[in-house]
Amino acid sequence: MIYFDLKASFIFTKDVSDLYDVFDNFFKNGVDKIFLKNSEIGVSIEDFNTNGNKLKIHLKSNQVVRANEALIRLKKELSNLMGFEFKIGVREVLIDFFNIKIEVDNNVNIKTLPYVKSIDYDGEYINVTFDTESEQKLTFSEVEKRIPDRIISLIKSKLADYGGKSEHWELLWESEDKEFEFNEDPTETMLNEGWIKRGYNRGQWIYGTEATHLFRTFEKIVLKELLEPLGYREMIFPKLVPWEVWMKSGHAQGVYPEIYYVCPPKTRDPEYWEDVKNIYNITKEVPVDLIKEKIDVPIGGMCYAQCPSFWGFLQGETLASDQLPIKVYDHSGTSHRYESGGIHGIERVDEFHRLELVWIGTKEDILEHAEILKDKYKHIFEDILKIKWRTAWVTPWFMAQEGKFGLSEMEGAGTVDYEALTPYNNKWIEIQNLSINATKYTKGFNVKSQNNKVLWSGCSGVGLERWAAAFISQYGLNIENWPKKFRRYFKEMPKGIKTL
Amino acid sequence: MIYFDLKASFIFTKDVSDLYDVFDNFFKNGVDKIFLKNSEIGVSIEDFNTNGNKLKIHLKSNQVVRANEALIRLKKELSNLMGFEFKIGVREVLIDFFNIKIEVDNNVNIKTLPYVKSIDYDGEYINVTFDTESEQKLTFSEVEKRIPDRIISLIKSKLADYGGKSEHWELLWESEDKEFEFNEDPTETMLNEGWIKRGYNRGQWIYGTEATHLFRTFEKIVLKELLEPLGYREMIFPKLVPWEVWMKSGHAQGVYPEIYYVCPPKTRDPEYWEDVKNIYNITKEVPVDLIKEKIDVPIGGMCYAQCPSFWGFLQGETLASDQLPIKVYDHSGTSHRYESGGIHGIERVDEFHRLELVWIGTKEDILEHAEILKDKYKHIFEDILKIKWRTAWVTPWFMAQEGKFGLSEMEGAGTVDYEALTPYNNKWIEIQNLSINATKYTKGFNVKSQNNKVLWSGCSGVGLERWAAAFISQYGLNIENWPKKFRRYFKEMPKGIKTL
Repeated sequence: MIYFDLKASFIFTKDVSDLYDVFDNFFKNGVDKIFLKNSEIGVSIEDFNTNGNKLKIHLKSNQVVRANEALIRLKKELSNLMGFEFKIGVREVLIDFFNIKIEVDNNVNIKTLPYVKSIDYDGEYINVTFDTESEQKLTFSEVEKRIPDRIISLIKSKLADYGGKSEHWELLWESEDKEFEFNEDPTETMLNEGWIKRGYNRGQWIYGTEATHLFRTFEKIVLKELLEPLGYREMIFPKLVPWEVWMKSGHAQGVYPEIYYVCPPKTRDPEYWEDVKNIYNITKEVPVDLIKEKIDVPIGGMCYAQCPSFWGFLQGETLASDQLPIKVYDHSGTSHRYESGGIHGIERVDEFHRLELVWIGTKEDILEHAEILKDKYKHIFEDILKIKWRTAWVTPWFMAQEGKFGLSEMEGAGTVDYEALTPYNNKWIEIQNLSINATKYTKGFNVKSQNNKVLWSGCSGVGLERWAAAFISQYGLNIENWPKKFRRYFKEMPKGIKTL
Repeated sequence: MIYFDLKASFIFTKDVSDLYDVFDNFFKNGVDKIFLKNSEIGVSIEDFNTNGNKLKIHLKSNQVVRANEALIRLKKELSNLMGFEFKIGVREVLIDFFNIKIEVDNNVNIKTLPYVKSIDYDGEYINVTFDTESEQKLTFSEVEKRIPDRIISLIKSKLADYGGKSEHWELLWESEDKEFEFNEDPTETMLNEGWIKRGYNRGQWIYGTEATHLFRTFEKIVLKELLEPLGYREMIFPKLVPWEVWMKSGHAQGVYPEIYYVCPPKTRDPEYWEDVKNIYNITKEVPVDLIKEKIDVPIGGMCYAQCPSFWGFLQGETLASDQLPIKVYDHSGTSHRYESGGIHGIERVDEFHRLELVWIGTKEDILEHAEILKDKYKHIFEDILKIKWRTAWVTPWFMAQEGKFGLSEMEGAGTVDYEALTPYNNKWIEIQNLSINATKYTKGFNVKSQNNKVLWSGCSGVGLERWAAAFISQYGLNIENWPKKFRRYFKEMPKGIKTL
């Protein structure tokens, strides 16, 4: 149960101290209909009084009709009543006190919340007392914007989190066991042969001609075996991602710890940057603290997921029925994640290269196409790359980050992870995934179909670094040992750049 | 002329007030050899005195041997003399006063400099008085690091700037005049037909299937007509650029106004980001000011020029002679520049796509290969794209930014801009360039050749947005009107994504 305790003041345009009986009558006989939901009334008016042009009122409620919702309805009804009968308007509504008690089994780890003065756990209830005094206080405007409801949702999602903290993982399929003739760390092996070198940033690599050709061969295989036969068309998705995109895609709900943030200069006026230039040219050190002062707040970040940027192309649009399903892909740039520190090779990197597929259509289109894609991927891994791999059903990112469990409209949504074995450490690494996003993006970006059918979408990201790590760790660098069909795609090994 | 006026104190490990005559003798007879350069002595000791363990000295000089250089030499000689004869060491050198007067014709616009208390112009001289008092003062350590010399270089380069402020531009070649049947703004035209849509960031576009196919056709033409015949090999250059790269490439000297800066989170601990998540989920607004506090100082920026990131692959390496010349290219991601505001279409964008070529070898290799490249480009523009274009000799970026004029070792370095006409506004836009960078990168990244020959390099960036703007503005979107050889490369127009 949730209990609400709310004190508020209505400020009228005229003195209302003579109208006590009018209010009394209204509260006794007129409010039931507005406090009713599912033939239950959960709101009570504990007390009220008038004084000058002020009406003070004390509401208590359970969650059937929340006290904050009751206050909004009261304001509307009182405005009608007083305006119609006495030509008196409601000038303002002040929140004097607001407390919410949420009955829980466990505490949740929340220390501060906007508009909240204190949040604590007494062993039975989480007590949320709103700030009604400071400059950051809750006003009626926030009540109208449903801020108290969002706070309850947030706490509830944390409570749900508590139960299901560990990510779901369920094996779907695993390829037959294989004998591996190679047993080395793929990164070390490629480093030793000069196929790759470390970049200057953490988790960043510079790919030489051999490794690049390997990546491009992976892409060619996906193109010829999957994208072209299935009618995918190439697009170029932007790679700097402003907040607006992540707000619509849902990433803004939780992606912060892993973002490489992007800040533009406050101005591009050369004079403004003269001191930074002078300091660098004299000290030969970049004055990073001074630069931090001279750049603006972050406008977003570098590409994290790849498909959110695509959706701007369709935002607010209605798709002709003969266009569906739409199938597009992008491989026009890098993705960047601030990964956990420590040593890791190309299996876990901060800057990576991915081929991203997006398909859009009716629910049936999306589910059917996902099965076709799975067959194509299986063919590629089984018959061309011939690697040891498996698939698993996992918690999709938007459920993990947003706590969207058990929404019936999301039935059928979900993510399949593709994993491959790296024999040198006998571990499985994720090499790609395939997600059915239900209405996640089509709703977020307001995309409709001509015939008003609900639109779904799916996406699948092929990680080239991960494919390389899997393939090289199972086969090594000697092209002679690679599977025949793969070599037909790979053709000649390009000449590498050799140093003494 | 430049005049130096320097007062300093040597602090010894023991009392030296009895040794006045020893110093006097040394200054009269011992210092000429250390103050001598090109058989000229430009330093004079104006005055000195001893007091306790302190020797105060006043030096004046011209630029032959600068007073700050004289001080370094004096410290060495005095250490030898006092150590050898009296077992007394130099504990510290204090800078009490330091002023430099630079004779100039014009003032330069410099307001603040590190380690400098004041800089002003009296109509004849620029007067630089160093800070010798505050926490940011010039100490002997900075003198040893040649900070005063760098300040003089900086002022001199500003003076040179003053003369050559306007960028050099000299027509090299222009194609024959053409009649244009199309006369529209290429961006508007593509927008109207749904080939492109605006991205959410300024100067950013989302490219639909038709525009993407156009870009890929440009790349295929460069691949088939130029890269493959000339033996170029593909690599993948990183796209997040840390300071270290720009320090070595020279961009750190002046690139600041146009950078999209990148800041990582201070930590990826989810707890640390909990408040940001909560605020977003409750207010549905991203708390950008709070995020700015929670991110680190900028570690660098998004890719600006494309080739600097490549050089990490060769840094500190020695190249075998049979490897030369090395020819590589990259088209693995986006470049980003904070361009001047206002409306502009795909002709001037903040996020763009470029094919970048790099070649490395001896000076002869580089110059010869540049001519071959120019021929290939000419063939592409004249025979395949058939556009109205021209080339011009321009100030290369590193000269513009670093003021490296007239260095004899740079003789032969330079940049050729390629421009094309956009008939709708009768303007020329830069569509690509070709630079001979002399030893700029090979020195900056310390790359050597086996036979100790000096290595040069060149680079050339093909701007796909610019090619598209030029081509579409001269031909329009109707494939029927496009040149035959181009259509052979283009093949089929892909189906676009059409909305109602």
